[in-house]
This record gives sequence, C-alpha cells and structure tokens, in this order.
Amino acid sequence: MNFNEEQVISEISSIFSHSNKSNPEVIVGIGDDAAVVTTDHHSVITTDMAIEGIHFRCEWSSAYEIGCKITVANLADIYAMGADPRYLVVALTLTGNEELSWIKELAQGIADTAAKSDSVVVGGDLSRAQQIMISMTAVGTSRLHITRSGAQVGDSIYVSALPGFSRAGFEILSKNLPHSPAFVRALSQFKSPELDPALMRTFKSAHALCDVSDSLLIQAEQISKASSVAFEIDTKKIEKGDGFTDLAAVAQSIGCDVWDLILAGGEDHVLLATGVNLPGICIGRVIEGSGVKVLEMKKAPDSWRHFN
Amino acid sequence: MNFNEEQVISEISSIFSHSNKSNPEVIVGIGDDAAVVTTDHHSVITTDMAIEGIHFRCEWSSAYEIGCKITVANLADIYAMGADPRYLVVALTLTGNEELSWIKELAQGIADTAAKSDSVVVGGDLSRAQQIMISMTAVGTSRLHITRSGAQVGDSIYVSALPGFSRAGFEILSKNLPHSPAFVRALSQFKSPELDPALMRTFKSAHALCDVSDSLLIQAEQISKASSVAFEIDTKKIEKGDGFTDLAAVAQSIGCDVWDLILAGGEDHVLLATGVNLPGICIGRVIEGSGVKVLEMKKAPDSWRHFN
Repeated sequence: MNFNEEQVISEISSIFSHSNKSNPEVIVGIGDDAAVVTTDHHSVITTDMAIEGIHFRCEWSSAYEIGCKITVANLADIYAMGADPRYLVVALTLTGNEELSWIKELAQGIADTAAKSDSVVVGGDLSRAQQIMISMTAVGTSRLHITRSGAQVGDSIYVSALPGFSRAGFEILSKNLPHSPAFVRALSQFKSPELDPALMRTFKSAHALCDVSDSLLIQAEQISKASSVAFEIDTKKIEKGDGFTDLAAVAQSIGCDVWDLILAGGEDHVLLATGVNLPGICIGRVIEGSGVKVLEMKKAPDSWRHFN
Repeated sequence: MNFNEEQVISEISSIFSHSNKSNPEVIVGIGDDAAVVTTDHHSVITTDMAIEGIHFRCEWSSAYEIGCKITVANLADIYAMGADPRYLVVALTLTGNEELSWIKELAQGIADTAAKSDSVVVGGDLSRAQQIMISMTAVGTSRLHITRSGAQVGDSIYVSALPGFSRAGFEILSKNLPHSPAFVRALSQFKSPELDPALMRTFKSAHALCDVSDSLLIQAEQISKASSVAFEIDTKKIEKGDGFTDLAAVAQSIGCDVWDLILAGGEDHVLLATGVNLPGICIGRVIEGSGVKVLEMKKAPDSWRHFN
C-alpha cells in the first residue's frame, strides 16, 4: 500500500463529502466525532457486512461492484421495513495490498448506490485487518413500518422480482464456466444486485414484508411463523412470472435445478411480501395453518447460504 | 466452534432482547430486517470498530472487557457531540475457534456498557472471518450539538480526565511487565476504559468538544484548526491535575516519558473541551493564532496510534 491512512481517509471522504454538503438534512457530515442528521419521529436501523472470501471475491467482482452489493444489502433491509433509507456509515478494513484506485472505486460504488436511493454516507471508520471487510449501517425513516408478523389469511404472496439469479451467478463463477450472453443477468445479480427504489417503495402497502437475503423458503418460513399463518407457494405461478424462462435456461446449462435456485438461493435482495394488489410476481397465497407448502414440488430444494 | 450460527444468534439476541422489550422507544427490536426506534428531530450517528490484533488481543483482555471497550469508543463519540447515546447495532465476525461462553461474555460486556448509558443494542450481523472484528454503530439524540469548530479565544481548555493511562496500560502489557498495584488504573483503562455518563453529560455547555481517541495533541490540533484559534496547553496545570502523580510514577517504573503518555497516547476516550467553568481538568487556554503550543515542554512527544 503506497499511501497512508490519512490519504485513504481524505480520498474516501472527498467521495462522500459532496453529497453531505448538498444535503440540507446533513447538519454535521463526515469529519467530526459523529454525524448530526435530521430524523423523523421513527427511525429504522440495520447493519450488514461483507467479508472478502465469504460474501465477495476480489477476483470475481470489481471494487465498484462490491461497494454496490453491500450497499444494496443494507438499503434492501430498510425498504423491507416499508421505510426509506437516509443515512449510511461504513466501517472498512484493508489488508494493505489494495491500490488506492481500488479503494476509491469501492467508495464510489457505495456513494452511487446510496445516491440512487436518496441516501448519503455520513461517517465511517478505517482499520487494517487480514481481510477486506465492509461493515455498513443504514438508518432510514418511516411513518409506518411493516414487519414480518402482519401476514393475513387471504393475502396474496409476492416477490418484487424472481429470486435465484444471484445463486446462479455464484454457480457460474465458482464452476468457472465460459462466458455466455445468457449468463449476464445471473452474473450481474450476484456481483452487484439491482435495487429499484421506485419499485421498493410500491411495497409500502404490504401487510408483511421482508428482504430475501437468505432464501425465499427461509424468509417465507420466517413470515409464516411470525404471522402465525401458512404460506402456499405455487410453482405454476412462478413459472409464469417474469424471468422464469431465462432462469430455467441458465439452470439447465449450468447443471442446477431451477427450483433450488429460486427457493433455496440467496442474496438477491428482492422483497417478499404479502398483501393485496402488490406489484412484482404473485407466487402464492396465505392460508390458515403453519409452515410453508410448495405446490407441485417434487423434491425439497437444498439449503444454501454463503459460499463457505 | 461446537455450535452453529443459529445458536450464536439466538444466544446473543437473548442477551440484548431483554433491554429491547423493556424500552418503550424500541418499537421493533432485534429479529426483523431492521429495528424501528423512536428518534428526535436530530440524530447523531457514529461508527467505530475493534479488530483482533489491532485494537485488542484476546490474551490480554477478557471478552467482557473487549465488549466494554468497543462500546465505550462508540458512546464516547456520541457524548463528544454533546448528545446522548440511544441505540447501537453490532456487526461481529468470529473465526470459529471461540467458545460460546466467550461470545456470550462479549455480548454481555456490550449490553452492560450500553445500559449504563441508557442505550440498547437493537440489531446486528454475524459472519465468519480470519479475525474477530466488532464493528459498532451508535445513534444518539441531541437537541444541540457541539462540534470541533466552536472554540473561542478566551475559552479554557479541559479534559474530562487525565489521558495517558490507556497508553501506559498498553506499554505494561506489551513489555509483559510483572503485575504491580500501581498499574491497576493503567491496565483497566487500556482493557476497558471507563465512561461516566453523568460526567460526560456535564460537557453539554462546552463551546467545542471532541473525544480523545487518537491523542490529546492530535485532537487539540483538530479543534484548533476547525475553530481557527490556537491552543496553549500548560504542563504546569496538567501536573496539578487529578491522576498526574500516579501516572508519573507509572511512567517512571515502565520507562516511559509521562508527557509522551499524556500528549501522544490514545484510546482513553476522555473528552477534550473548550469553554468556561467546565468540569474535569483545566489544561490551558484558547488564544488567537493557530496550532497547539505546549508551555514548558522540552521535547516533542512521539506520535502513537494503534499497536501495529
């Protein structure tokens, strides 16, 4: 590392400071003991970290993509409460082997992803460690909040987009498969999942809401348990949904079961919701009882979390 | 690690959940995508992490002490803005070699330190990594806020307590010196620095305020620069202050210059303030000009930050 801590802090700060200065709600931005920001009566707080070798690999993803991905993971948790993200703080460890340009790209990926959701980085911490680690906290604002416990019998079940592409992307990279145009969505969803703030906000009328970071089945079980209802997921509905044909083709060409990808994949950061007339893909309905039932599934999908 | 991630999360959550449930301002606590908390019009946000081998060593400090220390570092930053800490989130990495009892002690150290400052842990994240890393974010509330830029010519300069003990403790541990009753304060200040919330709150009438985490000289330079004034630190005043005689005795017996410890040590998490009639130790005055002048100092102290 041919630069010192002060230089790194100065470079990173300058990437984030612009948005601090142009935001009238940031009263004291980066550079003091803490940031002072305008909040509403209720705030939403979440934290999510990304560790090199666990959540990302530098040989697979650019610094910019890594910055985007960890930011999306945090923002999605705020949207998953029916809230709007406002402020982020970032704790970063570096090994000392990174180029300054890599670090600046990482910060730019974070800053750009935050900006798309009208949020700003207002502080951070930097240290040396054996691995690169990005630990982020997001603070959002909400007039209401939507937990996992609001699902009602009679609700339809929705996902904001088809999950499974991220897991497919991971499989393509870990099997080192040759590039194919059919893999673009899967690879980009794994490296730098997309987050559409306008779409996320349309889920504010959901009865129950969460982020599919672990897997659709795990998160469906969480909502069903928290709400004391049963989930009936209909594979026929999913098959008709946007993206299914593409994902099925990818699954076949990489030797995966498409239902493993959809139900047991993770890290897509799409929303899982119950309610009435929500956007996205309707995948089933909430019924009386407990647990998650998948209609017309022949086998239980494998569980999957992170890649080691 | 003879336990799984779910078990660790469950044990840690149960340590923190009690304070969530008993706090009417925590609307949604641990267990959903994010916490929902009551905030005021202005919130204060800071983040600070502790890395094994950089900020703490498991052979030197108990898990409980490590939990206390990182919590104090975060709380002190909130008090250093003239604000009151309210909520904490904790991202933790484990190597897999920790005992469950060690992890629970760490969480208890965090929970107890938070409780002393009327704050609660409302969320977290857990991952595996090559080192133990604790990344914490604190959110506080403030009607006012005190930055580094408010120092006025004519102000007196104060520290909430004499800094230098933490650095002395580090020296004792790294030189592996035999235990002595004279070392108790230094060792405990390094391993688990004390934070007196009542004392911290009395600094709300300061004109400029910050936390001495790097060193007194570095932080004095930051305030003097941000406020466009000069700092005149008087070693004679410090010599008369509480703790000086003890620290000087420790310094002599461990072969350190007491002024290196006081001016260039770090991680004491005492407050440095300028203003009128503040508590703590008066160490000098704010004058016209720029920079930090130390009266009657014969040599410049060595700079010191972390131990590698």
